[in-house]
Amino acid sequence: MLRAPDHQVAGHQARDGALGPLVDGSGRFYKPLQTDGRGSHELAFYTCFSSNPRVPSHIRRFFPLFFGTQLLEASDGSGLHPHLVLEDIVSHLARPSLIDVKIGSRTWYPTAGEDYLRKCLAKDRETTSLELGFRVSGLRVSEGGSGFWKPGKSAVKGLTVEDVRVVLRKFVSSNPTAGPESAPDCAFASAVYGGSQGILAQLLELKGWFEDQTFFHFYSTSVLMVYEKGEAEAGRRGAYLKLVDFAHVVEGKGVIDHNFLGGLCSLIKLVSDVLTGPTEFDIANGLNGSEMRPNCSMNGIKE
Amino acid sequence: MLRAPDHQVAGHQARDGALGPLVDGSGRFYKPLQTDGRGSHELAFYTCFSSNPRVPSHIRRFFPLFFGTQLLEASDGSGLHPHLVLEDIVSHLARPSLIDVKIGSRTWYPTAGEDYLRKCLAKDRETTSLELGFRVSGLRVSEGGSGFWKPGKSAVKGLTVEDVRVVLRKFVSSNPTAGPESAPDCAFASAVYGGSQGILAQLLELKGWFEDQTFFHFYSTSVLMVYEKGEAEAGRRGAYLKLVDFAHVVEGKGVIDHNFLGGLCSLIKLVSDVLTGPTEFDIANGLNGSEMRPNCSMNGIKE
Repeated sequence: MLRAPDHQVAGHQARDGALGPLVDGSGRFYKPLQTDGRGSHELAFYTCFSSNPRVPSHIRRFFPLFFGTQLLEASDGSGLHPHLVLEDIVSHLARPSLIDVKIGSRTWYPTAGEDYLRKCLAKDRETTSLELGFRVSGLRVSEGGSGFWKPGKSAVKGLTVEDVRVVLRKFVSSNPTAGPESAPDCAFASAVYGGSQGILAQLLELKGWFEDQTFFHFYSTSVLMVYEKGEAEAGRRGAYLKLVDFAHVVEGKGVIDHNFLGGLCSLIKLVSDVLTGPTEFDIANGLNGSEMRPNCSMNGIKE
Repeated sequence: MLRAPDHQVAGHQARDGALGPLVDGSGRFYKPLQTDGRGSHELAFYTCFSSNPRVPSHIRRFFPLFFGTQLLEASDGSGLHPHLVLEDIVSHLARPSLIDVKIGSRTWYPTAGEDYLRKCLAKDRETTSLELGFRVSGLRVSEGGSGFWKPGKSAVKGLTVEDVRVVLRKFVSSNPTAGPESAPDCAFASAVYGGSQGILAQLLELKGWFEDQTFFHFYSTSVLMVYEKGEAEAGRRGAYLKLVDFAHVVEGKGVIDHNFLGGLCSLIKLVSDVLTGPTEFDIANGLNGSEMRPNCSMNGIKE
């Protein structure tokens, strides 16, 4: 019995008769191939990636497993449609918290046409991509019981750099929806971000690969960070990350993916700041900014 | 006695009655403040940087020493003009080889106006900046005797990614101007790029700082890599790098300079490739590309 996934936080959704991904509830995720060529391109990526013997196995775990393609009844009722068959990376979780972070200050690839470039550049400038090297595309944070916090699309789109800093704290807090008077408690920061197997360690491992790999350049690809609320509450570790969305991957041709790597390093810095940096109190009181600012002004740049 | 520097490879030149930098032959470099605001901005950077107690001393050595400003007769004969007084980083060398590498796939800063953005973006796309995360802005490679190889501005501007790979080999070769039939011999690669104190080690040290520092974002800043030919011939080390050109530095505001860091990592990868990667023969025979390419094609992306 295929159905729309419960925990999707970004991308097209198979609801209200639209075309979107489906899950079978037993570990597989079916992503309809987009018909404009992006779908076949993502398929080409999964095929290349799966068969590339030079991708080390400790890096493969950061990608969803790929099981080929399958013709399925589309979620929009339009009949049979080819789907990518992928690992459902959250099917085994009861109360997952997840955040989708689109990496890179630039979401367009060098050979992109003018219209596509302009569209992407505008979005990169409107969101935090340009300034921060990444943007949050969606999130869902489990709260008490079966409740969860999931900001709407326009709220997510409007996040500023300082908002993203707060969101990365709320993501690991037991009180993500507390009002402005009570700061996110970061109760799960150490269990989720910290430790030798935590999210930060995994991001650093991924960074090591990106410093060297020249096979692929990942434009508009996201890092999905995931943990199970119950596990975190019990102080158990088990958070993980997965890369998703490969419709705009291009060949690296002997050059590293400096755009993805730069954004990844920026995310690493902000996650580190949650573990070791200024507290929410500092941020609220502007200590974060001033502490990190040089001791004299550099305003008033001329072009 | 002030005069135009002998070894300048990029930027405005104080020749033929134009406004440009001067040297005094005893270790100081006088850079005229550009009157459109860029000059005062570069001055603001040097002032902030010099007085920032959080910049570690092992990082300071990668920046020219700053001695304030001075009113001097301008090289274009227009009368007294304010100059930045800086360390002349090559005055002590008899036969220097140097290469100016402008770091970053994006040379415009986030708050730039539309015209400036468009101008920079066009240059970033025409050169290797976009693809490679950096571009070569100029170079001078000492040859036998007092001879040297210094490609013209338009030749430097037209360098492709593969050309840059070759230039990084020629920069450390005793035969930089040999024809296409004889490959650059990379005779000085180990003395210049290699070793625990070599250029690669220095680039990695700089990278470590950029992974953490959030004071400054360096747009259009160059890494200058320098060595003395005679020293390299004798197998002695002593190559060094300096950052130059700070007219477009902006405050980091708690975010790392992911644009500079990404480009720096790309340069590190290409310099490593000279030391450990495929030989010139491999490159000439196309083995470099094919070896690094995935084993299936990802062409034909649709937007």
